[in-house]
Amino acid sequence: MKEFALIKALRRLLPPPGPGVSLGAGDDAAVLAPRGRPLAVTTDTQIEGVHFRREWLAPAGIGGRALEVALSDLAAMGARPRAVVVALQLPARLPGREALALMRGLIARAAARRCEVAGGNIAVYEGPLALTVTALGELPRGAPATLRSAARPGERIYATGLPGLARLGCEALARKARPTPYLRAAIRKYLAPRACVEEMAFLGRSAPLGAAIDLSDGLAGDLGHVLAESGVGARLALEAPADFKRACAALRLDAQACMLGPSDDYELLFTAPERRIAPIAPAFARRFGRPLLPLGLITPERGLWIADAAGRARRITARSFEHGA
Amino acid sequence: MKEFALIKALRRLLPPPGPGVSLGAGDDAAVLAPRGRPLAVTTDTQIEGVHFRREWLAPAGIGGRALEVALSDLAAMGARPRAVVVALQLPARLPGREALALMRGLIARAAARRCEVAGGNIAVYEGPLALTVTALGELPRGAPATLRSAARPGERIYATGLPGLARLGCEALARKARPTPYLRAAIRKYLAPRACVEEMAFLGRSAPLGAAIDLSDGLAGDLGHVLAESGVGARLALEAPADFKRACAALRLDAQACMLGPSDDYELLFTAPERRIAPIAPAFARRFGRPLLPLGLITPERGLWIADAAGRARRITARSFEHGA
Repeated sequence: MKEFALIKALRRLLPPPGPGVSLGAGDDAAVLAPRGRPLAVTTDTQIEGVHFRREWLAPAGIGGRALEVALSDLAAMGARPRAVVVALQLPARLPGREALALMRGLIARAAARRCEVAGGNIAVYEGPLALTVTALGELPRGAPATLRSAARPGERIYATGLPGLARLGCEALARKARPTPYLRAAIRKYLAPRACVEEMAFLGRSAPLGAAIDLSDGLAGDLGHVLAESGVGARLALEAPADFKRACAALRLDAQACMLGPSDDYELLFTAPERRIAPIAPAFARRFGRPLLPLGLITPERGLWIADAAGRARRITARSFEHGA
Repeated sequence: MKEFALIKALRRLLPPPGPGVSLGAGDDAAVLAPRGRPLAVTTDTQIEGVHFRREWLAPAGIGGRALEVALSDLAAMGARPRAVVVALQLPARLPGREALALMRGLIARAAARRCEVAGGNIAVYEGPLALTVTALGELPRGAPATLRSAARPGERIYATGLPGLARLGCEALARKARPTPYLRAAIRKYLAPRACVEEMAFLGRSAPLGAAIDLSDGLAGDLGHVLAESGVGARLALEAPADFKRACAALRLDAQACMLGPSDDYELLFTAPERRIAPIAPAFARRFGRPLLPLGLITPERGLWIADAAGRARRITARSFEHGA
């Protein structure tokens, strides 16, 4: 397909703009109507070979995943997705139908999120398939964004899902492991993450939160950002679930290292006083089909500490798990 | 430089957020304060080898150019730049200091435009240097965006600068032509375009415009978009300036084809009734140091027509100049 024909075909995929978007794709820029709320803005690039592999994920899944990954950053701020713009970098050899399938997947996830695909850009080049999704989201009126810098000593650390599960799924794919039902769920978690938009809306309505961040680098890395920005430390008490431990052992992975190291979970990590979370935790679990996981405690002393197998406190840094360190 | 160290160093370059940005880079998302005006949003990717060559442009120039190219789309809508977010794709082999110089160049141009660099994303990969700039701009209260679809028969077609000049500059570089002063200006036009933000603000204040688009694909292509979206046609009367013709001839380029074909001018093309433009044209020329160029007339009959050397009308299409057609 010629580049101009492909651009036309891609544009035809977009549904007409919904309320709040005065002008959709097709002009020099899209236009959003003002609605009097603070607007969160985030941009994220997903690149073949770095963030995903085409042999693991069909084009529609690549598009949907890129959308959810961008929305995850909005969720971490407590913002509701409003619109995205999408910059595609298509390898010259990529069949046009794959580009179309990718955008269809992205548009379907955006529709499920009631988020407009307001515009985009297409470049054909010699390089890996890449998508940059810039997402705009609204903060609730009167509610401040949940910042990385807002963790306070005494608050407990929670996650909306198990850190490291996506890493397990990724390793299972890389090693072509025989997929048990548990591994299948881990693989799904890795390939088709879901931004915690509704989870965060529920939490924000139910309890005053401290800091929040999405788990995209892994627990040690992302919690490390929160600690550094907040000027505090943390003591972790990690208890890996038995089935996670078993699955890790079968792949000769250390379960605790998996929970701490790089993992694309796109769950939320947040801090809050335990007494505010305890009363709402059962409702959270009922509503979202998974419990809030307590991971440890924010401390006034700097540093990230974890108890080892013998119960001794060991200090770790984000660097312990840094890519390429 | 390690990836995390580079990210830190890049973040340190950003000035603190100015008014209108509640939260700058460094968290999951930036936050813009609401200001009650429609927001134009556009995204654009510039890729080494496709949109620029590193041997022609220092890193700071690459960053500044990407910023201006994104703002050009805002200008075409009549919007004032407010903030950008920048997604960098850095080749693994790129020295850290070049990435820093690139961002410094981008930040300097943004500062000159009073536009915040509100956040970004960095990915290191095996591929060409690429930057995706997503720009957010405000429309003046009560003023509609200038759309591609708003050209009406009888309106005259104008450009804020000579279409094809950037193409001439690009060809001069590619052929390593001996640079005359005129060629030097053309090369500057190609390497360091300036978005017509102030030009458009002046025009929008001074006269009711019809359609507008920025000249990024070339005159035939971009005017073709306006004609298609507006359901009208145009008759062009192009008169290449004598020095442009001479410079084209020296490079064995057809001046008219240069004016019509692909060229990254980032000037604005707009339509308006001649009687509204004539009174303000002298003030425009004084203020911006170059005249408004009348290029032809919008007609009710579809199609894009141009007079050939013998004065015969010849029909052309965007396709005549399509990349890769």
